[in-house]
Amino acid sequence: MPVTLEPPDPDSLLPIKGVTLGAAEANIRKPDRKDLLVIALEDGARVAGVFTQNRFCAAPVVVARQHLTMLDPDASIRALMINAGCANAGTGKDGIAAARRTCGELARLLGCSSAQVLPFSTGVIMEPLPVARIAAGLPACVAGLGENNWLDAAKAIMTTDTVPKAISRRIRIGDAPVTITGIAKGAGMIRPNMATLLAFIASDARVSLPLTRAAVAYAARRSFNCITVDGDTSTNDSFVLVTTGAATMPEITDAAGREYSAFRDGVTEVALALAQAVIRDGEGATKFMTIRVDGGRNEDECRRAAYAIAHSPLVKTAFFASDPNLGRILAAIGNAGIADLDAEKIDLYLDDVLVARNGGRHPDYRESDGQRVMKQSEIEVTVKLNRGPASGTVWTCDLSHDYVSINADYRS
Amino acid sequence: MPVTLEPPDPDSLLPIKGVTLGAAEANIRKPDRKDLLVIALEDGARVAGVFTQNRFCAAPVVVARQHLTMLDPDASIRALMINAGCANAGTGKDGIAAARRTCGELARLLGCSSAQVLPFSTGVIMEPLPVARIAAGLPACVAGLGENNWLDAAKAIMTTDTVPKAISRRIRIGDAPVTITGIAKGAGMIRPNMATLLAFIASDARVSLPLTRAAVAYAARRSFNCITVDGDTSTNDSFVLVTTGAATMPEITDAAGREYSAFRDGVTEVALALAQAVIRDGEGATKFMTIRVDGGRNEDECRRAAYAIAHSPLVKTAFFASDPNLGRILAAIGNAGIADLDAEKIDLYLDDVLVARNGGRHPDYRESDGQRVMKQSEIEVTVKLNRGPASGTVWTCDLSHDYVSINADYRS
Repeated sequence: MPVTLEPPDPDSLLPIKGVTLGAAEANIRKPDRKDLLVIALEDGARVAGVFTQNRFCAAPVVVARQHLTMLDPDASIRALMINAGCANAGTGKDGIAAARRTCGELARLLGCSSAQVLPFSTGVIMEPLPVARIAAGLPACVAGLGENNWLDAAKAIMTTDTVPKAISRRIRIGDAPVTITGIAKGAGMIRPNMATLLAFIASDARVSLPLTRAAVAYAARRSFNCITVDGDTSTNDSFVLVTTGAATMPEITDAAGREYSAFRDGVTEVALALAQAVIRDGEGATKFMTIRVDGGRNEDECRRAAYAIAHSPLVKTAFFASDPNLGRILAAIGNAGIADLDAEKIDLYLDDVLVARNGGRHPDYRESDGQRVMKQSEIEVTVKLNRGPASGTVWTCDLSHDYVSINADYRS
Repeated sequence: MPVTLEPPDPDSLLPIKGVTLGAAEANIRKPDRKDLLVIALEDGARVAGVFTQNRFCAAPVVVARQHLTMLDPDASIRALMINAGCANAGTGKDGIAAARRTCGELARLLGCSSAQVLPFSTGVIMEPLPVARIAAGLPACVAGLGENNWLDAAKAIMTTDTVPKAISRRIRIGDAPVTITGIAKGAGMIRPNMATLLAFIASDARVSLPLTRAAVAYAARRSFNCITVDGDTSTNDSFVLVTTGAATMPEITDAAGREYSAFRDGVTEVALALAQAVIRDGEGATKFMTIRVDGGRNEDECRRAAYAIAHSPLVKTAFFASDPNLGRILAAIGNAGIADLDAEKIDLYLDDVLVARNGGRHPDYRESDGQRVMKQSEIEVTVKLNRGPASGTVWTCDLSHDYVSINADYRS
């Protein structure tokens, strides 16, 4: 059951000029569902991506990275191709050849080169990609291409997700109205269940390729790179930003300018909403937690402490039980690998309830106050390290019986 | 339900000359159970310990470390005092004062100095130590001191353990018969580092203090520091080795001698049996897994890969389900933080079944073979990195519904 997350209203999703989408049933893993998606881009779109750092990165990630770097400067990426049901990871050299073959099939249908297609996969690891079924499904995707299919697209890439994730924002850059629309999938191995997190955001803004790349890295660091369901970084994680340049505006080329800031912040807002939607729909999630660590020497140690809390199975099960067994949070901080951390300086808040001061339970803390907050479906944990000026925030969910059930039964 | 683990046969537990034990009901957390233990040592015993590296280390750990280092060279530790039900961690300066007060109480009863008592606690974090109840329980512990109470002692320190853990070994050092007996507790928050949970091993061997210290560090590295239930390093981990010197033998003082090796290996064997018993009784465990990584450049990277597998919730839930969803193991290896790892060199075995070769599914691998192994209650996972001569092994258990239930309900 997702935490405070409704399916997107189809009317809220805004088309992006220069982007069309088409999904089809390719029977990759389960029948009677669309599981193959093509996102076609008009000539000249700028595309930038960030990918998993898992060393067992999937074949489509290897190929997509290659295509992005190999691309002739005069050419542009013409399509993203995404399948659910099979991750094409842990498949060795055969997997890479299979990903290339599906790129070739789509390139033939679209009349472009194979290197102008970026492949993405999500699903079970270590099973061969069903190339023939994908090839058979692609014509229906291409035939169905349309600019209003964003919701359909969000549904086609789901695996253990229970709610499709899609969002649009209208921003203004200078005088120009600009639209940003994005979709994402992922619920476990979020670092995900088999699967993966896939996120695609497109905008009609006119942005140079270097600044499109800068914006995707900036947004990733402040959104998808700040969430965790289970600490398992997937083999297939990919986050891609497309700028079609269809909006009537001067091209953004100055990284220090207000126009770039407006664009970058708009993309980050969409990315953060999608990232938080992934957590709200995390496998088995019953609670949405914001873990904020202040007063660190640098952002890295704040994030390290926040992740140590967010990854602790003991913390996560206590939140599932609405049990203010908050010593587990202190134990997790002590485990964060911050070598010279002074436990006696640390304060801990649950929402606005002061639980611990100077490393020990605060004398005024009453368990009934902790209990009240723990029963909420959204909870903010704030830790003050009191040793510096930096902050860091991570979003996560609890660990419930349903997480175990979903992952024990995923393939059946 | 523990995995292939029976309660110890009381007759199998051998007394150690110079060590007596007494347990009592102190009503620390739950009524009608013994939850306070005193292990009294005759004058002259050598005591060495290794302790948690969690920065939020518990008050008793702070005090025990101080007492071990402060001790007058002519004096010796006379007692270990252990309570279950309250960890006295996350309790700040008050917690340290409380631990000292309980040491003082026991010292008064035994006629020694407070610094000759080492305190240990296990249980809920961030609750104050009930000093008065412990003080009230200590006389019964002292009155009951006897050398045949090892099983009673193992029971008194249990928390979520379902089976008491105790073991004895008789070894021969030169011509002298020597006995080693140990107890341990722990089922969750198990990812010992440097030490573990609580474990106490005593021997009548005559061993110098430096070599007693060397043996405890050696054994810890090969036993408790190789196990994990949930990746959460506890605030209270302590592993203590006592040598009473009561055996008729020359003192062991030569670290390069056969006598030291025999003693060290005997201690390590007892420590490993206790450590594996902790995993077999891991919270909610239904399977006992040995994760062996070969062919690494050094032991550290082998252990890192083994821990990445052992900590992955997705791997652990797949084992719980007996589902050979083995791509999750590859994904976990890719996540181990080994920067230049070449995924295409990696082989994966499940017991003797070759699952993946060169980073991809082996063509002869049949899921029915994987399924057969996954149904066993004991499973060995072997990963070959094929990049060097080193190996590393970690023992762990699966992640089941009962883990969630136990930790959601622990305090209730």
